[in-house]
Amino acid sequence: MAIAYPQFFGPKKVDPSLMVSSSSSSSLSPVILSQDELKKVAAYKAVEFVESGMVVGLGTGSTAKHAVDKIAELLHSGKLKNIVGIPTSKITHEQAVSLGIPLSDLNAHPIVDLAIDGADEVDPQMNLVKGRGGSLLREKMVEAATKKFIVIVDESKLVNHLGGSGLAMPVEIVPFCWEFTLKRLEMLFIEAGCVGKLRTVGETGEPYVTDNNNYIIDLYFKKDMGDLKSASDAILRLAGVVEHGMFIDMATTVIVAGKLGVSVTNK
Amino acid sequence: MAIAYPQFFGPKKVDPSLMVSSSSSSSLSPVILSQDELKKVAAYKAVEFVESGMVVGLGTGSTAKHAVDKIAELLHSGKLKNIVGIPTSKITHEQAVSLGIPLSDLNAHPIVDLAIDGADEVDPQMNLVKGRGGSLLREKMVEAATKKFIVIVDESKLVNHLGGSGLAMPVEIVPFCWEFTLKRLEMLFIEAGCVGKLRTVGETGEPYVTDNNNYIIDLYFKKDMGDLKSASDAILRLAGVVEHGMFIDMATTVIVAGKLGVSVTNK
Repeated sequence: MAIAYPQFFGPKKVDPSLMVSSSSSSSLSPVILSQDELKKVAAYKAVEFVESGMVVGLGTGSTAKHAVDKIAELLHSGKLKNIVGIPTSKITHEQAVSLGIPLSDLNAHPIVDLAIDGADEVDPQMNLVKGRGGSLLREKMVEAATKKFIVIVDESKLVNHLGGSGLAMPVEIVPFCWEFTLKRLEMLFIEAGCVGKLRTVGETGEPYVTDNNNYIIDLYFKKDMGDLKSASDAILRLAGVVEHGMFIDMATTVIVAGKLGVSVTNK
Repeated sequence: MAIAYPQFFGPKKVDPSLMVSSSSSSSLSPVILSQDELKKVAAYKAVEFVESGMVVGLGTGSTAKHAVDKIAELLHSGKLKNIVGIPTSKITHEQAVSLGIPLSDLNAHPIVDLAIDGADEVDPQMNLVKGRGGSLLREKMVEAATKKFIVIVDESKLVNHLGGSGLAMPVEIVPFCWEFTLKRLEMLFIEAGCVGKLRTVGETGEPYVTDNNNYIIDLYFKKDMGDLKSASDAILRLAGVVEHGMFIDMATTVIVAGKLGVSVTNK
């Protein structure tokens, strides 16, 4: 169940300049924004942190897409200059190329100034689940190399504990003997009622293939999986696992757009 | 520097039935065997542990190849029956098919009775470096699923500490931004004087590609890398790393063939 808890929505944290008022009224009561509009509000707020000359990690997914659009707009208007983008997926690479954002990679720019990306879940300690969009590995590589990592979400992504939304926690694995790896993952979290499912595409049920030619196992938890660092190490120790979608202790800022406005929380 | 230390070559551990005497003499003084002959002696000793009806992990490399040959020979002579082989690489799969050994995989047989494989290094605690042949991931998947894991080496593979031979400790990584991952691996072990090198093939210097379509970074250490479990976790935590060639706490038996005979050491 997703909840908005005080640390992201205490009264001092809400930025009143981002309260959205109806254009047909002088009242300050906010209008109801759609989920996509909330994503856009969070994304635009994050782009305010981008400065000319920065190397910027460009996230993947429906929320991050708005940030990439905004960065391109500011580049074209001349308000931002000399930005180098590091895309976190093939799809973001294509988007950025189509928008004319100059791009590079981690080989040429091993240190990233700032990365902006969405998340599927955010817990009260600013730990994340990412990768429901399928790009967790490249996102993690870029976001582990960044000085400042800004996470942008609408309030539906807030959870009490990772896995708590009841939605998937993805694990990228090698295709070789994937059924075996799925079973081993389930066994790791048997006490948390973990069930794993191979991610597929289309009606044929073909396995979804990542940018790195791997498969994704989506893990679903009935209970809290316990200590996250231990859980992370246990998953990574399984031969056959490439990476998982928990981003522990990586976010430095979380921007949450909700019906009450936008909160910006720094670590 | 490779060394033969007492725990593998104490007088009680040497199996005198395997001392090889010259056929032209009744003396018990051993003849000098080539390295390949020593590998064969170790491999044949390991195959003595195989029983009819077992699911057997079939290793990869020049030493394990002798074991696979021997298992096939015993199957054809009827001395072994109902063996199911689980190959640890495409090349061993091909060898086993050509020899007529019935094969399966970890999906159908998630529990392996016994696995026999070589190693590139063996330390006094029976920790291993494997994967110089390029199959470390599939080997680790099979050998993590086995009840008994018999390692077969000639005495040149014995080291004081992993990395101590001065030869490579391989790490399998995703191709995406491999130069960046190489630098991060070197930084992890900067105090051990670690240098990484992309494994290549042929004169063109094309990257070597594993069975899982990944690359291999070979790490070379000037000094002991310290606590192996910490080193293992640190490597696995790097996004971009798929697996490494240290097999810690996995071997249950080590068979070493040396000029003084064969030693069998159980954990």
